Amino acid sequence: MYNFEFQNPTKLIFGKGTIARIKDEIPAGTKLMLTFGGGSVKKNGVYEQVIDALKGYDVVEFWGIEPNPKVETLRKAIELGKRENVDFILAVGGGSTLDGTKLIACGIKYDGDAWELVLDNSLVKSGVQFASVMTMPATGSEMNSGAVISNLATKEKFAFYSYYPKFSILDPEVTYSIPEYQVSCGIADTFVHVMEQYLTTTGINSLMDRWAEGLLMNLIDIAPGIAEDHKNYDLMSQYMLSATMGLNGFIAMGVPQDWATHMIGHELTALHGVTHGESLAIVLPATMTVLSEQKKLKILQYGERVWGITEGSESERITKAIEKTEQFFRLLGLKTRLHELNIGEETIAEIERRFNERGVKLGECKNVTGTVARAILECAL
Amino acid sequence: MYNFEFQNPTKLIFGKGTIARIKDEIPAGTKLMLTFGGGSVKKNGVYEQVIDALKGYDVVEFWGIEPNPKVETLRKAIELGKRENVDFILAVGGGSTLDGTKLIACGIKYDGDAWELVLDNSLVKSGVQFASVMTMPATGSEMNSGAVISNLATKEKFAFYSYYPKFSILDPEVTYSIPEYQVSCGIADTFVHVMEQYLTTTGINSLMDRWAEGLLMNLIDIAPGIAEDHKNYDLMSQYMLSATMGLNGFIAMGVPQDWATHMIGHELTALHGVTHGESLAIVLPATMTVLSEQKKLKILQYGERVWGITEGSESERITKAIEKTEQFFRLLGLKTRLHELNIGEETIAEIERRFNERGVKLGECKNVTGTVARAILECAL
Repeated sequence: MYNFEFQNPTKLIFGKGTIARIKDEIPAGTKLMLTFGGGSVKKNGVYEQVIDALKGYDVVEFWGIEPNPKVETLRKAIELGKRENVDFILAVGGGSTLDGTKLIACGIKYDGDAWELVLDNSLVKSGVQFASVMTMPATGSEMNSGAVISNLATKEKFAFYSYYPKFSILDPEVTYSIPEYQVSCGIADTFVHVMEQYLTTTGINSLMDRWAEGLLMNLIDIAPGIAEDHKNYDLMSQYMLSATMGLNGFIAMGVPQDWATHMIGHELTALHGVTHGESLAIVLPATMTVLSEQKKLKILQYGERVWGITEGSESERITKAIEKTEQFFRLLGLKTRLHELNIGEETIAEIERRFNERGVKLGECKNVTGTVARAILECAL
Repeated sequence: MYNFEFQNPTKLIFGKGTIARIKDEIPAGTKLMLTFGGGSVKKNGVYEQVIDALKGYDVVEFWGIEPNPKVETLRKAIELGKRENVDFILAVGGGSTLDGTKLIACGIKYDGDAWELVLDNSLVKSGVQFASVMTMPATGSEMNSGAVISNLATKEKFAFYSYYPKFSILDPEVTYSIPEYQVSCGIADTFVHVMEQYLTTTGINSLMDRWAEGLLMNLIDIAPGIAEDHKNYDLMSQYMLSATMGLNGFIAMGVPQDWATHMIGHELTALHGVTHGESLAIVLPATMTVLSEQKKLKILQYGERVWGITEGSESERITKAIEKTEQFFRLLGLKTRLHELNIGEETIAEIERRFNERGVKLGECKNVTGTVARAILECAL
C-alpha cells in the first residue's frame, strides 16, 4: 500500500425530507448566496423547499450555471458575491452547479480573474464557505474538493481543487424528476470514477479493490431496476449514495489512480459538448482495449470479481470483460462509439494535437500521450 | 435505506515513517500530555520516534492505561491534566490507550467525577483536543468518537461517546512487534465490528452490504499470510487499515446495527478479563446460531458472498456459514468456546441476572434479553 493522507470533513445529510435541515446547519444572520443551474429546481419543488427552509435569512440568488460550468458565467456570480458581501454559498443543483460554486467561493476572495485560479490552483488561499443541496448525483462534488471548469473562449476544460462543502444534503426523492438520459449519464460517470481509481496495478491495496468492486457491482445491480422505475426510493438512494462514495476519497486510500479516460472524455465535451457521462462510456472501453496489456492483471480480476468471468484464455476473458463494460453502458441507453455522434478523424487529430502541444502524459503510467490518445479514440470510432 | 447523517473529521496519516509527521499537526507552543499503556512502546521504538518528533514541545507523560481502561486509572490522568493545564493529548498506544484518552480529554473539562460522563454521555459538553499514534489496530478508535470504559469497583464496562481524534497516525511497521495472539484478537475484533453492522435485516443498503462483505473477505484473505509472517508490510497495512475502516462509520450509513455480541462479550471481559477479541470469537457464532431464524436471509447472503456457500438446503447453508465463521476464529488461534476458559453456568447466571436487572433488550430487534443472552452463552459452552 502507498502512504496516504485522508481527511474528508463534509457532513452528509442523507434521506427523505432532509432539505428542511439547511437551517440547522447555517448560522442565523449569515449573508447567503444561492447558486442554481437552469431552473429545473423550480419545477421539481426543490427551490420551494429551500426557500421555505431559509425564511429569515438574507439571501441573494444567482441563476444560470450551465452544465460544464463556464468561467464566463461564474465571473458574474463572483461579481455579485463580492458586491453583496456574501459569507456563505449554498449550491442547489447538480454537480455542475456545485463545481461552479467552488470556483465562485474562491473567486470572491481573490483579487484577480477567476480563470487564473483554475490555471494555477496554488493561487487559492481562501474561500467563502459553501454547501450543497445535491439534485443530480454523478460527480461526487458534494463530498470532495474538486471541480471541473470550462472556458468558452479558449474551448478548454480543466480540473480545479479548492475546499470541501461544509455539508451536503442528499434527498433521493429529488432525483425522481431527472430525465432518464441524465440518470444514465450519472451512473456511467460514477462507474468510470470508480474505474479510474481501480483499474491500475494489482496488489497495491486489496481492501480498496474490494470496495471499488463493491461499488461497481452495486451499480450493475441497480441499473436495470432504475431503468424500469425512476421513482423507486431504495434504488435511487443507491444511485445517489454510490455517486458520492465513488469520488469522495473513500476508495482512493493508498492506491495509484489513472484518469486518462476522463482527460480524453473532457476533450470530447470541450470540442463537441458531449455529455460527460456519455463521453466516458465512449472512451473507457477503448482505453481498456488499447492498454489491455498494461492493465491485464487488473482487467482479469475485474472480469472475475465484478462480472463472474472465469472461463476461457486470459485474452478471451479480457475481451469479455471489456465487452461487458461496453454492454453495460449500452444497456443504460448510452452511445459508446464516436461515429454515433458523427465524431471522426478531424476531432481525433485535434485532440492529438492538443495533447502533444501540452506535452501531456496521462494515466497511471504516464504513457497516454497524444499518440496513445489517438489510438484510444480510433478504437472508439 | 434509512435516513442518516455522516461526518468524520479525523485526518488519517497512513504509512511508513509517518510518526515524524506529528509536529506538522500540533501547533507550536501547545502544552501536551502524552498518554501510554504499559510500556511496549519503549521496546518497539515508537516512544523514541514520538519524543524525537516532539522536541521543543512542553510535554507531560502519563503511563499505565491498561487494556479495558479503568476509570480508576483515568481519574489520575485527569488530575494530572487539570494540574498541568494541558491543551492537547496525544495517545500513543492501542485502542485501550486511546479509549481512555477520550474520557481523559472530557474529564479535564468536567468538574464532577469522570464516571458520571460514562453513565450519562449527555453531560459531555467539551473536551481537550486529542490525537493518536495507533500501535495496535483493532477498535477503530483512531477514527471514531467511541470508547469503552470499565469500572473496577463495580465490575462494569460501558460504551462512551465523545469527540473524534484530530488526527491519527498509522504506521504499519509499528505492528510488527505485536504478539501473535493480540494480532489475532485484533483481526477477530475487526471482523465482529463489521458483522455487528452487517448481519441485520437484508435489503436496507446494498452498497453498505458490499463494503462490509469486502472488509470481511479481505480479513479472511490476509489472515493466513499474517499468521506466517508478522512483518509483511502489505498484509499488516491491510490489517491496520481494515481495523480503522471497520468502525469509523463508513459501513454504517443508513443501516440498522446489532451489537448484541459485543454487549455479551463485554460481560465476559468484565467478569473474567477475557481479551475483547476472543470474547467476540466465542459469542458471535453462538449469537448467529440462536438468532439464525431472525437473521436467516442475511446469513445466507453472507455465506454465499463471503464464503462461496451455494449448495445445500437453506438450513445446511446457514449451519455451514456459522461453522466457517467459528473455523476462521480457530484458524486465528483463538478459543471459541466458554469451557476452554473454564467459564460455565455460574457466569451465565450472573450475566442473565445483570441483563434482567438492567432490563436490557439488545440487538437489532431489541429482543436479546437476559433469557436470550443465556441461550447464546449456553450455545457457546
